[in-house]
Amino acid sequence: MSIDLSTISKLADLQSVRSKWRHNSQTIALVPTMGALHEGHLSLVKLARTVANKVIVSVFVNPKQFGQGEDLDQYPRDLSADLNKLKTIGVDLVYAPDASQIYPQGFSTNISVTGISEGLCGASRPHFFGGVATVVTKLLLHCTPDIALFGEKDYQQLLVIRRLVIDLDLPVDVMSGPIVRENDGLARSSRNIYLSKTDRQTAPLLHKGLLETRARLQKGAPMIKAAQQTIELLSRAGFQLDYFELCDANTLAPLKQYKGQPARLLIAATLGRTRLIDNIAVIG
Amino acid sequence: MSIDLSTISKLADLQSVRSKWRHNSQTIALVPTMGALHEGHLSLVKLARTVANKVIVSVFVNPKQFGQGEDLDQYPRDLSADLNKLKTIGVDLVYAPDASQIYPQGFSTNISVTGISEGLCGASRPHFFGGVATVVTKLLLHCTPDIALFGEKDYQQLLVIRRLVIDLDLPVDVMSGPIVRENDGLARSSRNIYLSKTDRQTAPLLHKGLLETRARLQKGAPMIKAAQQTIELLSRAGFQLDYFELCDANTLAPLKQYKGQPARLLIAATLGRTRLIDNIAVIG
Repeated sequence: MSIDLSTISKLADLQSVRSKWRHNSQTIALVPTMGALHEGHLSLVKLARTVANKVIVSVFVNPKQFGQGEDLDQYPRDLSADLNKLKTIGVDLVYAPDASQIYPQGFSTNISVTGISEGLCGASRPHFFGGVATVVTKLLLHCTPDIALFGEKDYQQLLVIRRLVIDLDLPVDVMSGPIVRENDGLARSSRNIYLSKTDRQTAPLLHKGLLETRARLQKGAPMIKAAQQTIELLSRAGFQLDYFELCDANTLAPLKQYKGQPARLLIAATLGRTRLIDNIAVIG
Repeated sequence: MSIDLSTISKLADLQSVRSKWRHNSQTIALVPTMGALHEGHLSLVKLARTVANKVIVSVFVNPKQFGQGEDLDQYPRDLSADLNKLKTIGVDLVYAPDASQIYPQGFSTNISVTGISEGLCGASRPHFFGGVATVVTKLLLHCTPDIALFGEKDYQQLLVIRRLVIDLDLPVDVMSGPIVRENDGLARSSRNIYLSKTDRQTAPLLHKGLLETRARLQKGAPMIKAAQQTIELLSRAGFQLDYFELCDANTLAPLKQYKGQPARLLIAATLGRTRLIDNIAVIG
């Protein structure tokens, strides 16, 4: 049995629902997405259900976070499939604004977060985090949730958003959910459907490489040594490596060696024409 | 008789007062200032009293809107004198946050408005409107007023803030108040106290020049001709002209001639070491 699920595209309608909820002292959790929902998103939605009375999922493919030559036009969009997936979990509202609702005519405001957004994905995609910070600020102001949930798959994005929320004193708690993987270890991503059949078989090597490198780091190898075999393995398998870094888990400052501090191992690589990212915690 | 006036420096205390007001269905107006209050600010505060039940005046000298070599350190600060002025008008709350409240350690977020902020003052002071947009966003999020009031003296700033508020869907009405002038026409400004006695006597020429140029524009002279005598007059009087432009009143696009459209005449010039700005509407 599927429950009824209301979809709202106008801010005024959203505000009216939100006021009613607030009036009834309901707490609200928001899961911002670009649609093309997979188990990763759904795990965040399930987590959201456990931490608030009402759950909003936003679906908006944000043009500002795509650069020229990136996959904005090809990005998978299927709202009715997304709604069917959400219905089975019990979401209270889907906010799917038009682009004109988010970026009205003459829109000229940019929000950027320096520092933490500059390395890793920010170096390869200089427009990306500005687009993310701008749209997430707008979605948080539209939905005014008590809690907003983001996946650790986009680890740098998560930290950028945490910084943004602190800096603007946005009255929301940012909560993260762990990466959800396929059985073979590939991190779930809306972009996995771009992979050819062969590339799909190769793709789990990214996660395998993270695990092997982490094991070598934990035995005391410096990153430059620990990463070497993995870089060779991925290169032979056809990956074009974008970055592969050991970073401080909070600041993303690059680390040369793991010494028991909170650290994260992050990787980005292109396979065929698909850019894949992944990361794991390097725990003591 | 002076009324009691509470001054708050912590966001949490502000939020507590604000919630109480909201709970009692009080409407709130905010007048953001950098202190050093003069009749221009006070006229905005009086206007605020007529449009909302509760009036907050914020006092914060925002380091982000000063550039290197500008007058951040010299900028006049006298909170107790400001409070005395506000007491006589009947303000409900003064929000005077510490810099650490506005810019916590590690602060990395910048808000900028492209287009409208790029000419005029934005060309001479490239850091200025980014600093303004960032702090105004924060103050609006802190105070969540129904109405925020800004003076037309900073006309470009007013338009930047109007754009910002539309773009981020901030739930506030932006209202402006007219420029308040000394008897001799000099626009009131916290920076007027920097002027030497001689420069203070020369300073009203800026407003005189605006009036004379407007008269010539209204008779059909193109801006380049209409401005000529004023530019010469100001130059002979010792002003260093920064800009003197006829602009569309809404977009600030430069205009070559006044043809009955909503237009604004804007000027900035340095006298001694003091940068003065002024503007007037060019009405039909």
